[in-house]
Amino acid sequence: MTCQYMATIGSSLLRSSITIRALSPFNPLIRPTSIRQFQSTFQLPLHQCARRAMSRVRATHDEEAAARASATEADSGAPTIFDKIISKEIPSNIVYEDEKVLAFRDINPQAPVHVLVIPKLRDGLTELGKAEPRHEDILGHLLYASKIVAEKEGIVDGFRVVINSGASACQSVYHLHLHVLGGRQMKWPPG
Amino acid sequence: MTCQYMATIGSSLLRSSITIRALSPFNPLIRPTSIRQFQSTFQLPLHQCARRAMSRVRATHDEEAAARASATEADSGAPTIFDKIISKEIPSNIVYEDEKVLAFRDINPQAPVHVLVIPKLRDGLTELGKAEPRHEDILGHLLYASKIVAEKEGIVDGFRVVINSGASACQSVYHLHLHVLGGRQMKWPPG
Repeated sequence: MTCQYMATIGSSLLRSSITIRALSPFNPLIRPTSIRQFQSTFQLPLHQCARRAMSRVRATHDEEAAARASATEADSGAPTIFDKIISKEIPSNIVYEDEKVLAFRDINPQAPVHVLVIPKLRDGLTELGKAEPRHEDILGHLLYASKIVAEKEGIVDGFRVVINSGASACQSVYHLHLHVLGGRQMKWPPG
Repeated sequence: MTCQYMATIGSSLLRSSITIRALSPFNPLIRPTSIRQFQSTFQLPLHQCARRAMSRVRATHDEEAAARASATEADSGAPTIFDKIISKEIPSNIVYEDEKVLAFRDINPQAPVHVLVIPKLRDGLTELGKAEPRHEDILGHLLYASKIVAEKEGIVDGFRVVINSGASACQSVYHLHLHVLGGRQMKWPPG
């Protein structure tokens, strides 16, 4: 993904709900928190990204609101940005992958290590609250994969796994995903 | 469990590491945060519990330290308080139970709904970081049980599941447990 690509979709959809969701701080791919991070992410000269990056910062400061905005699509079954990450149409920083799951870094990390683990096949698991008994196999594999991720990242001695289900839990992408966080002392309560 | 029972174990072990862990704010059974809560929990006259309850508040304010203290027993494989909850030797407020898992309310809730979901058989799962492929079945069932708990508690439209693995994630009982939280707007970052 390039800044130009971002500018194209951004200008055409600037005030649409789709854009709000795409720019959400919970969108694990495109939510830079500063100009430098934006520039680093999209690897373009700083001046090309500065204005857009700053507007994103302003647009995405209310994370709870962003989650609420995306909740309108929770039950639509519509594709999410994760589909494009799984297909590699959109690049991501992959930490672990097998035939069932993909783990990649959150672009707006909340800890030195912050990785998302998702099922490659959503299969109705827009959120954990939609889980059925038939999903137990993939749910177990996702948790085990989280442990593998922690090992690979050198944090297996201390890490937190978080699953947000629904808007009031701050979920904004309706494709089940596990947050694996570590590399610092985690606090209590957990948000 | 009664206040008298608590006083007995408290007086004999007041400065031991066992007591520190037992009084930890992460101990889901015996960590009241106020005199009233203590009195309500153990259903005894207020004056019998006041002094002890206040000392517990002071003793348990540093939750990170409590988790570090209990980490010394992380790899011991020693029984935990959860064994007595599972055996019903220590009563708990059970929300859901089946042949594999038990779900009961955290006595120091961090949200209007705060339930712990644990495997009845620990089977080496002192923490998620110890998970092996053979654990995938129970891990999947624990996550599915979390969804059942959310349904039973009326929060299936919005809940967060948190797993702390290791001291830096604030784990203090070394028997895998999932926190299911909801009933309020959850915040970000998750601790």
